[in-house]
Amino acid sequence: MSSGPLLIVLSGPSGVGKDSILLRLQELGYPFHYTVTATTRPLRPGEVDGKDYYFVTEAWFERELARHGLLEHACVYGRHYGVPKAPVVTALAAGTDVILRTNVDGARSIRALAPGEVLIFVMPPSLEQLEDRLRRRQTDSDGDIDRRLSEVRAELGALDQFDYAVVNEEGGLDACVSTIAAIVQAEKCRVSRPPVGLA
Amino acid sequence: MSSGPLLIVLSGPSGVGKDSILLRLQELGYPFHYTVTATTRPLRPGEVDGKDYYFVTEAWFERELARHGLLEHACVYGRHYGVPKAPVVTALAAGTDVILRTNVDGARSIRALAPGEVLIFVMPPSLEQLEDRLRRRQTDSDGDIDRRLSEVRAELGALDQFDYAVVNEEGGLDACVSTIAAIVQAEKCRVSRPPVGLA
Repeated sequence: MSSGPLLIVLSGPSGVGKDSILLRLQELGYPFHYTVTATTRPLRPGEVDGKDYYFVTEAWFERELARHGLLEHACVYGRHYGVPKAPVVTALAAGTDVILRTNVDGARSIRALAPGEVLIFVMPPSLEQLEDRLRRRQTDSDGDIDRRLSEVRAELGALDQFDYAVVNEEGGLDACVSTIAAIVQAEKCRVSRPPVGLA
Repeated sequence: MSSGPLLIVLSGPSGVGKDSILLRLQELGYPFHYTVTATTRPLRPGEVDGKDYYFVTEAWFERELARHGLLEHACVYGRHYGVPKAPVVTALAAGTDVILRTNVDGARSIRALAPGEVLIFVMPPSLEQLEDRLRRRQTDSDGDIDRRLSEVRAELGALDQFDYAVVNEEGGLDACVSTIAAIVQAEKCRVSRPPVGLA
């Protein structure tokens, strides 16, 4: 009913499962334009450049920042992350829904930039389960994990700036993905939604 | 995520298929409290009192109106229709989602009364198809149908007072019902929704 494509922003604490959700949506064939975030952090084992992230140099990142080529950007634990704007603008202009993943601060920047978007906060079932998940992932040091958990407490305080909150239960990925799909389906029927406006 | 049960109001022009949608949701086992509208119009062939409608007398209707016992009420083609309030209040208090069917004016009265509710406008695919459906139903005279169609044009003008619009395509009942189910699922994840307040 609403005219124009959706810009869906999937956010939430680090380790909550945003990547798995996007991968599952892709596997299920949801016809979104899936953005790839650019980052200066090193590639983790199993990650693929251009698929999981664009692994870029500091110089590339600074150049894109200077020319306003990033939709949002953040510095997390000394590493830069940012969503290149051009592919998003192109996809929306072609009428394609866009889904992107960002941390909580990034979601708030996008809300300021593009009032027509749909902000979804992915919640851990509990802080204990999130901690367990981060430790099992074995990609971060204990110090990193402690820092992350205290950030999560702060991020949960930003929940009221989001449109939807979806809990990603342990072992409940499919239920979480199906809820996100329902949110997208419902948003397409909203009578009044401002069109996504990206410069 | 939102606390409290939902009050879902299914509205739209006469003949658009609201009854079939509710019946299908019931058949599929959606755990709503399904309200039954009271009416002074005569029972149509195949209808069951207490299931399709409560078929009531003018005296009953006037008594309930006087004691504010109806959630909304309308006079359509000389017949009274109204949704008894008590069962809705009881269901919501027990934490049960409520779904009710009403005409477009009724939906607007409920919006004024209960700001936390979800208003869904069921649209005909086109005025031509709606006319065809009404004529095939053979329950209304040609004069009634003409009056209804001109009312529909006016009702479509009230669309912007609704939260969602869902098209009930010819032969597309299951798609329409699945969209309504998605809207309900999404609304349950909304971060901020005023609680339904009924006196």
